[in-house]
Order: sequence, then C-alpha cells, then structure tokens
Amino acid sequence: MPDSFAVSDRTRVVREANRAVYDREAIYKILDEGFVCHVGFAAEGQPFVIPTMFARVGDAIYFHGSAASRMLRGAGSGLPVCITVTLLDGLVLARSVFNHSMNYRSVVALGTATLISEPAEKLAALRAFTEKLIPGRWEDARQPNEQELKATSILKLPLTEVSAKVRTGDVEDDAPDYALPVWAGIVPLRLVADAAIRDERSDASIPTPPYAAHFRR
Amino acid sequence: MPDSFAVSDRTRVVREANRAVYDREAIYKILDEGFVCHVGFAAEGQPFVIPTMFARVGDAIYFHGSAASRMLRGAGSGLPVCITVTLLDGLVLARSVFNHSMNYRSVVALGTATLISEPAEKLAALRAFTEKLIPGRWEDARQPNEQELKATSILKLPLTEVSAKVRTGDVEDDAPDYALPVWAGIVPLRLVADAAIRDERSDASIPTPPYAAHFRR
Repeated sequence: MPDSFAVSDRTRVVREANRAVYDREAIYKILDEGFVCHVGFAAEGQPFVIPTMFARVGDAIYFHGSAASRMLRGAGSGLPVCITVTLLDGLVLARSVFNHSMNYRSVVALGTATLISEPAEKLAALRAFTEKLIPGRWEDARQPNEQELKATSILKLPLTEVSAKVRTGDVEDDAPDYALPVWAGIVPLRLVADAAIRDERSDASIPTPPYAAHFRR
Repeated sequence: MPDSFAVSDRTRVVREANRAVYDREAIYKILDEGFVCHVGFAAEGQPFVIPTMFARVGDAIYFHGSAASRMLRGAGSGLPVCITVTLLDGLVLARSVFNHSMNYRSVVALGTATLISEPAEKLAALRAFTEKLIPGRWEDARQPNEQELKATSILKLPLTEVSAKVRTGDVEDDAPDYALPVWAGIVPLRLVADAAIRDERSDASIPTPPYAAHFRR
C-alpha cells in the first residue's frame, strides 16, 4: 500500500488547501480516535447523514447501519456513501471575528459500501467495534451468538478515496489586526471520561475492570 | 409554532423508535450545545458529508459552507441537504457484546438550503456563530467589514423536517445475561476545555477574558 492516498477530484481539499492531509498513517490515526462516524447516503435526491459506530480494520471501515442497510437492500450491489469522522480540538479566538475558527481533524472517505454477510467477517467487525470502544472489553463480555450475528447489519467501505483536513496550532490574524487591544488565543477542547457508573443490577462483588475505572482515550 | 415537529416519512425514527424525540425545545437544546454540524449533500450521485460551524437562530440553522455553496451555485435556487448534530455522552458496557452501545443525542434536519446574500442577515449569522463558540466574544473581537462579509458563504436551512434520537441512562441486557459474572456499566464522556493558551503575539497586559479563562460548555 502506498503511504499516501491518491488525490481525486472528489477528495482534493479545495478551500484552505494547506490543511489537507493525504498521508495514510495520519488518516488512520484520526479514524481510530473517533468514536462515531457520520454516514451520508442519498435516497430519491435527498441526502441523509446518520451517526453510527464504526471501526477501521486494515484498509476498510466497518460500520453499523440500519438506515443505510435498508437503503442498500433496495440498491442491489452497493450504496454510494461518504463517511466522515471529525475530532474537535479547540476554539480559535482571533482578534477579528472573520478569523475565528476551530482546531479540528476530520477525515472524509468516499466510495461504495456493501453489506457483509460472512459470519466470520461480521464477528471480526463486532470485535473491532468493541475493542475500539474500550480495549479489553471483547474478552470480558459475552460474545455474539448466531442469532445476534444474523440480527446485526454491518457495512464495509474500502478505504480508497480518502482525504483529511486538519487545523492545528495558533491564531492567524490579518497583519493590521495584531495591533488591536483584543485578547487572542486558543481554548483547547478534549473528550474526557468521568468515573464509571456501575449498573444497578451488577453484582457489587465484581470489581470494576481497569479499562472502565481508568478510561483514557 | 407547535411544540413538536410533525413527523414525516423521512424523519420518523424507525429503528429503536423509543429513542425518538420530536419536541422542538429538546431538539433546539441539542443543536445549541453542538459546536459542529455535519452537512450532507449529493453531487452526481455521490454523497458528501462535511463538518462545519453552524448556529441556530430561531427556527433556522445557518452554516458555513464553502463546499456546499460551490454546489449551490451550480444548483440554482436551493440545495437538498441533511444537517446532523451529534453529542456523545457515554459508553454503554453491557454484559453482552450485542447490547454494547453509546449514550448520545443527535438531531437530523432535512430540507433545502439557500445561500444568504443580505449583509444584515449575514452579519446576524456571523454574530450567532461567534456567540455560540463563546458567549461574549462578539463584542470583544473586531467585527466583520464589508469585504469580509462578501467573502463569507453562509447557507440557511429552515427547521421544518427535523427529528432527534437520544439514548440515555443504563445498560440494557437480555434477561438471561444479568446472571453472568460480567461487570456492566456506563463510562460517561464529555467535552471539556483546558486552560486558554494566549497567542504568542498577544500583548501580555491584556487580561484573559473570563469566558476564555473559565470556559464551560
């Protein structure tokens, strides 16, 4: 696999092209950090965007998709989708309103999603979802039975037409604005976990596993 | 305005219908808490999903849209879009892999977006973006001049066909699984701000405004 994704007309970052990232490893890191992806598909000219769980396995994304899979059953062999994963890193407070922005990392992946049917591939995808949520969980939880595997709709999108856009670092103001008596800076944002809350029906003698007690993304 | 959005075939929550929310106030609260929306639109059969800044003003969403506005210039009077806002509240660790989930709140708004051109409406939208990022900022920063207003593409989506989906609260396992010796519970997640980082080029005698020093969403 080449280290970077080939740029297509559809994935080229046009606006703020200096923020474009096509490096495979950098893109996979963003995908792996996101908990939720937004899946876009169209039905009768109307686009739909649905948040859902996903995981990257190698050079593909697997995602849960009840709405998309309903569409897919009508669509036959595959459904054109766009999967977008966005991580928010901070508020950028510039001297001018015009230069206010956010620090973020986002990936846009285009292509045709297909429904997976092989039980072994489904199981591997569910394992990836679970381990992505919280590493170590797969071995502790009761694993899916045949009926549950059947009831789960999972779609696969090969990662071939992909780009990322990243804004990081400092405020950027227009030259004359640096003289203004306006405070400027970054407010960093991050997703944190609070203390795990034991299910009321959970046996109190079962210790909280370390991955839940000390969760850090 | 009625207190709830009328349910259409396109916004009815089909899967896990018990998580559906159509109440206007509850939906507006979710929209107002989100920093980023995901805008979906289609071009030549390919859906695109782009993260962007937005704000709700009354019964409409305004959003920044370079990609969508390029599309719109080709599309004429309006562009069919879907705007989705998702807030992540926690990881749901059930006894079975199958019942693993996330706590979340998400809004899906469908309709036709139009480019706004009136300078006064653009200014109001930029004010809403800025105040949404961080209340109080609009008065402190240098406000947009005529040239900047012209250079900013802002689209408007009236909120008419809208629904939300919310998962909250406890783990829900299948009855027989409660007997399993598996820890179950919730790992709450939230977006937090770290201490504001002053821009290196900012005059150190300008105090950090309270909204940046003690930011809380």
